[in-house]
Amino acid sequence: MRYLLLSALLLSTAIHARGTGDLGVLIERADSSVQIVETSNNTSLARVNGLGDLSHASIVYSRDAQFAYVFGRDGGLSKIDILSATLVARTLQSGNSIGGAISQDGRLVAVSNYKPGGVKIFDAETLELVADIPSTYGDKQQTSKVIGLVDSPGQKFVFSLWDAGEIWVLDMSDQNNPAIQKFKAIGLNPYDALITGDGRYYIAGLFGEDGMALLDLWDLDKGVKRILPNYGRGEEKLPVYKMPHLEGWAVAGNLAFVPAVGRHEVLVIDMLNWSEAARIKVHGQPIFVMARPDGRQVWVNFALPNNDTIQIIDTQRLAVVKQIKPGKGVLHMEFEPRGEEVWLSVRDEDRVEVYDTNTFERKAALPAKKPSGIFFTARAHRIGL
Amino acid sequence: MRYLLLSALLLSTAIHARGTGDLGVLIERADSSVQIVETSNNTSLARVNGLGDLSHASIVYSRDAQFAYVFGRDGGLSKIDILSATLVARTLQSGNSIGGAISQDGRLVAVSNYKPGGVKIFDAETLELVADIPSTYGDKQQTSKVIGLVDSPGQKFVFSLWDAGEIWVLDMSDQNNPAIQKFKAIGLNPYDALITGDGRYYIAGLFGEDGMALLDLWDLDKGVKRILPNYGRGEEKLPVYKMPHLEGWAVAGNLAFVPAVGRHEVLVIDMLNWSEAARIKVHGQPIFVMARPDGRQVWVNFALPNNDTIQIIDTQRLAVVKQIKPGKGVLHMEFEPRGEEVWLSVRDEDRVEVYDTNTFERKAALPAKKPSGIFFTARAHRIGL
Repeated sequence: MRYLLLSALLLSTAIHARGTGDLGVLIERADSSVQIVETSNNTSLARVNGLGDLSHASIVYSRDAQFAYVFGRDGGLSKIDILSATLVARTLQSGNSIGGAISQDGRLVAVSNYKPGGVKIFDAETLELVADIPSTYGDKQQTSKVIGLVDSPGQKFVFSLWDAGEIWVLDMSDQNNPAIQKFKAIGLNPYDALITGDGRYYIAGLFGEDGMALLDLWDLDKGVKRILPNYGRGEEKLPVYKMPHLEGWAVAGNLAFVPAVGRHEVLVIDMLNWSEAARIKVHGQPIFVMARPDGRQVWVNFALPNNDTIQIIDTQRLAVVKQIKPGKGVLHMEFEPRGEEVWLSVRDEDRVEVYDTNTFERKAALPAKKPSGIFFTARAHRIGL
Repeated sequence: MRYLLLSALLLSTAIHARGTGDLGVLIERADSSVQIVETSNNTSLARVNGLGDLSHASIVYSRDAQFAYVFGRDGGLSKIDILSATLVARTLQSGNSIGGAISQDGRLVAVSNYKPGGVKIFDAETLELVADIPSTYGDKQQTSKVIGLVDSPGQKFVFSLWDAGEIWVLDMSDQNNPAIQKFKAIGLNPYDALITGDGRYYIAGLFGEDGMALLDLWDLDKGVKRILPNYGRGEEKLPVYKMPHLEGWAVAGNLAFVPAVGRHEVLVIDMLNWSEAARIKVHGQPIFVMARPDGRQVWVNFALPNNDTIQIIDTQRLAVVKQIKPGKGVLHMEFEPRGEEVWLSVRDEDRVEVYDTNTFERKAALPAKKPSGIFFTARAHRIGL
């Protein structure tokens, strides 16, 4: 009887009843582990191990914000219960993958693969395979790396084929009959993509030529349109130390802020006509260009050798107004959902830092093993994350 | 010992460990109760009683999405733990109140009062009074009803004074020294207000004269600007059966959709220049005009005698494309955070209904006692809700 009681008490310690709205998961890339953190008091709650190669790993959340799906570089898809801090399911679904998404209704998790290419769709509850979409193109003998995978309303997933230069819209409304609409010749080597917060516009950045490829998901008949034709990789031959991320983009009013590839500039796009509105000189090659949730500031981190620095752009003045140096290897940023604080991973210092976005004061520092991506549960409720 | 074990087990039943991301609370206005519901399987989980007069009640959430703050019409402010379904704190803070808000950091809850007027600020943890802001105006002998209270970034609250025709911006950054900036002569009888999703523009609807009052919170020096001068209550003398709500407004791209007061129209505002872009004829006097989270549809309910009907506007075509009749007394709507389903309260039928927003198929119906407002926890992460 004493033993039973102890078990009951232990159980209620392990499965901690609390709201999950202020929780987050941060990737410890060198250690196959993640930390579960909370943003109300800025503390670490638990660690989960055994998640494989987590370089470039990302996360989406279940619709109830109890489970995190971790997409590892080694093709591992892991499902973590963030309340009990346990690994509840894991599948090694490919040899090399990069990124994933969760369907609008939260029932399907999609993973985009480098090797052997393609997209796989899993049941969010069990991680059983629901659909396998090979990324064959041309004479169907080749498969392409898949990048820029996002969710879109109507149980859709949208992604780009690096080798093929195509954008595909996958409709999973009928799980047994996935419907694919393909847009070909969209440009050379799309390297990443973004989708607007309303899920309407999908924009792929091109590495192989100038400009970006825009698809209006509300009007697929119009096809893909080339935008920012005077910008791009093809324009200058600077070495690119690290490919920027388009998913961490920024919108303020009608202006979108995106990293320029291989240039010390942030590009500003006027979303009313998709023209270039401005270029802002920054400290290095931008990697993530992320808006504070109110859109008044944009925070930028950089590739080597400038990855010890963050610059903050005022979106009204279109100018850098503040610079901070958290330490070496600032890899990622995540704003708290209503924007009062931002978390930064400082990989080479084995530390995560939290800043007040009004005063720029450092509010907390948490030890972490080579931290990279930071993901808060508010993502569960957003389109395209 | 047996008793202790039982206690431990009962405790772990009552405090149910689960994610709170898919939870919501619906008001049962005639019964002083609320129901706790979940949107993954569309079921009711629990009921909490003893909440006073809940006509016109509304809710905000704690930043961890474990607690709901219920603002009752009788001045009651109740804090509910939605995991254990218990009332954890309650204060009768005025004689008659209407609405509240929670600060950006989640530490302060504000309530706006009709009688005796003013705004009270409470500690979100304990519900202890932090600040009392009387709404005196003119010769300081009078106090005004306060309406249109919203939160804004930087620990601010913004609200309007019905009797005084003023908008106040309250800065609670320093809790011991609330700072108030007052904008006077903004127009006659502001009746409700909205704030844009980025927390930048505050717009009060005027009941006593034409137009609406716009305040740019990023540039307070510019003062209040009158917009839509050709629209308003003063223009026609139709009887107004029920005051519309501006908080449940809609944005799609650059267009904002708001209910016209006392007219069978939804007004479309071009947010680039704040001019009237269109008027859409609808079935009755609109009450709530709410956008599906992707902004592609706007759902509208109506005042008596048309409150059995919902109309759905396509935001591209600016036309009503669908009409449904859920039953008598459709009082409120709440979209699931990513928009695949919408919940409707059908008061006179003692029922809440859930619809697929793509097919318009009814997916579920739940019994509820005179349901009115429905509020999902994703609100915890949004500005101005």
